[in-house]
Amino acid sequence: MKPVVGLTIGDYNGIGPEILLKCATHPKIRSICTPVLVGPYAAFEFYAKRFRKERELRRMPIIEVAGGGPARPWPGRITARAGMCAGLAIEAAVDRCTKGEIDAIVTAPVSKEALSIGGYGYPGQTELLQKLTGSRSVAMMFLSERMKVGLATIHVPLIEVPTVISRKLILEKLEVVASSLKIDFRLRHPRIAVLGLNPHAGENGLIGVEEKTILMPALRSALSKGLRVSGPFSADSFFAMHWNGYDAVLAMYHDQGLIPVKLLSRGKAVNFTAGLNIVRTSPDHGTAFNIAGKGTASPSSMVEAIRWAVKIFRNRARGGVKGKHRRNKPGRAT
Amino acid sequence: MKPVVGLTIGDYNGIGPEILLKCATHPKIRSICTPVLVGPYAAFEFYAKRFRKERELRRMPIIEVAGGGPARPWPGRITARAGMCAGLAIEAAVDRCTKGEIDAIVTAPVSKEALSIGGYGYPGQTELLQKLTGSRSVAMMFLSERMKVGLATIHVPLIEVPTVISRKLILEKLEVVASSLKIDFRLRHPRIAVLGLNPHAGENGLIGVEEKTILMPALRSALSKGLRVSGPFSADSFFAMHWNGYDAVLAMYHDQGLIPVKLLSRGKAVNFTAGLNIVRTSPDHGTAFNIAGKGTASPSSMVEAIRWAVKIFRNRARGGVKGKHRRNKPGRAT
Repeated sequence: MKPVVGLTIGDYNGIGPEILLKCATHPKIRSICTPVLVGPYAAFEFYAKRFRKERELRRMPIIEVAGGGPARPWPGRITARAGMCAGLAIEAAVDRCTKGEIDAIVTAPVSKEALSIGGYGYPGQTELLQKLTGSRSVAMMFLSERMKVGLATIHVPLIEVPTVISRKLILEKLEVVASSLKIDFRLRHPRIAVLGLNPHAGENGLIGVEEKTILMPALRSALSKGLRVSGPFSADSFFAMHWNGYDAVLAMYHDQGLIPVKLLSRGKAVNFTAGLNIVRTSPDHGTAFNIAGKGTASPSSMVEAIRWAVKIFRNRARGGVKGKHRRNKPGRAT
Repeated sequence: MKPVVGLTIGDYNGIGPEILLKCATHPKIRSICTPVLVGPYAAFEFYAKRFRKERELRRMPIIEVAGGGPARPWPGRITARAGMCAGLAIEAAVDRCTKGEIDAIVTAPVSKEALSIGGYGYPGQTELLQKLTGSRSVAMMFLSERMKVGLATIHVPLIEVPTVISRKLILEKLEVVASSLKIDFRLRHPRIAVLGLNPHAGENGLIGVEEKTILMPALRSALSKGLRVSGPFSADSFFAMHWNGYDAVLAMYHDQGLIPVKLLSRGKAVNFTAGLNIVRTSPDHGTAFNIAGKGTASPSSMVEAIRWAVKIFRNRARGGVKGKHRRNKPGRAT
């Protein structure tokens, strides 16, 4: 049985519908899963006409989503209606997934600005998904063949990062990542490396104190709970020297984790929300408004996202979603 | 005529003396320059005996440095005497370089802690060199075949980075880097990319304001002065997508610049102080106290540092050190 994967439209003024149409008809994808589009048919049709994919679109299963009147794609623009449809598509997909009607979700990119004026005031899809599924704690992870990176903080201004991280937060993220490595990637004794916040991981307190006051106590707590964690490592030399020995890395902030994973994956990194009780991945790029509607967007990261979603779904099905994940009760999704 | 390159000992309890002995007798090095060791003979002798390099050491020119009694190497330890000798070696090398007796300096790594208890309370060698040469403004750069990265801030705790950067600082660093690209690397119209401070370069103000309040005004000032600058770019996707078109990148903080340059250079990145009126490079690694005295340290980054120093010296000699660099008057060096 091939798993059924819901592909949410994302912001229909970006490249989402285009890459979904390219993916949904991609032989590599059709051989591993049954893709289902989630979004307003009119928006998919707009791009299908433009790229001569109408016949393919008509053969695709679709979960229709409507809100705020008919969808009116306007490539490259930020509109409230596109933001609202993006949010509604996520809600619909989560609802079907929670009910077991679809097996995993892969989300096309959204614009935070459009989401916000469309009535979804969340920093990103990850936070919206956490809310919709009622998940206690989640972690944004980036997956590639060569490495897996978890982020302690996501879309936080750099100036706030040192105040947002705390012993509790680091321990929580380590638990989510470790649990995901066991359940989603079937690693029995996963090893996680933790990066320092400051240059040279604080150089023994000479360049910042957070390694001593936050990271080392959090690492000790994690060790005492039986997690196999090491660090804090000096981030600049870690990726060049040490990362091969670890199953995942916990980075303290967005660029610290994403610069290396994007460099090492060559456009194939995939965003994965660890800790959700549903399987959700997405490509590592944004809405790319500047090339929306031009037909030049590459579906390769989206193809990878679908492949990882299928892999994680199968891993969970084999091992069962046990332990930590039981604590995340599904929330109400309209 | 081969240029004369002074190799300062660094912290003699680290791997400095070992890699310098390996480099000074390296055929690749002897063919491009005349290396001169700078540091206490007794410390070099200690390691030469251990690694059977006594004959080679006796044939090497050396600038003797003494302070605080005889040098007593103790591999892996932090001692005041080692810190003092590291500082004295830098002073001696700068003095000879300023007088024209040597042509360039390559510095082995120091321990900030040892330097400090040895009487040199500087965050690093770069700041000490700036002081000794009386240079108005300098920028730490990292050089590799594939990319050159300048840093707006260096050894600053992450929490202070957003308050340290200012329009003035960014403009100053852009001027130093641009001037260095012209004089040291003979690029007539260098192009510099500036990275954002926040995730997604602030995403139009949604994730942090510094791109709007500091970086964009600084970029406008730089453009109005005729510099070819672009940005601010989202740092995570920049290295994976855009960097090929630029001669250098200005990163906002240590890890943002060093993670990618170390990943891309595979252990061959070199630290270069742009804006000094003398030529100074150093390897991209630290004292490596954990492997000091074991004979296993690789000299490859030090070899690269010497090669870049020779290249930059030759470039300056061809074009003359004109323009901006004239403003840096040599300071008094004891």
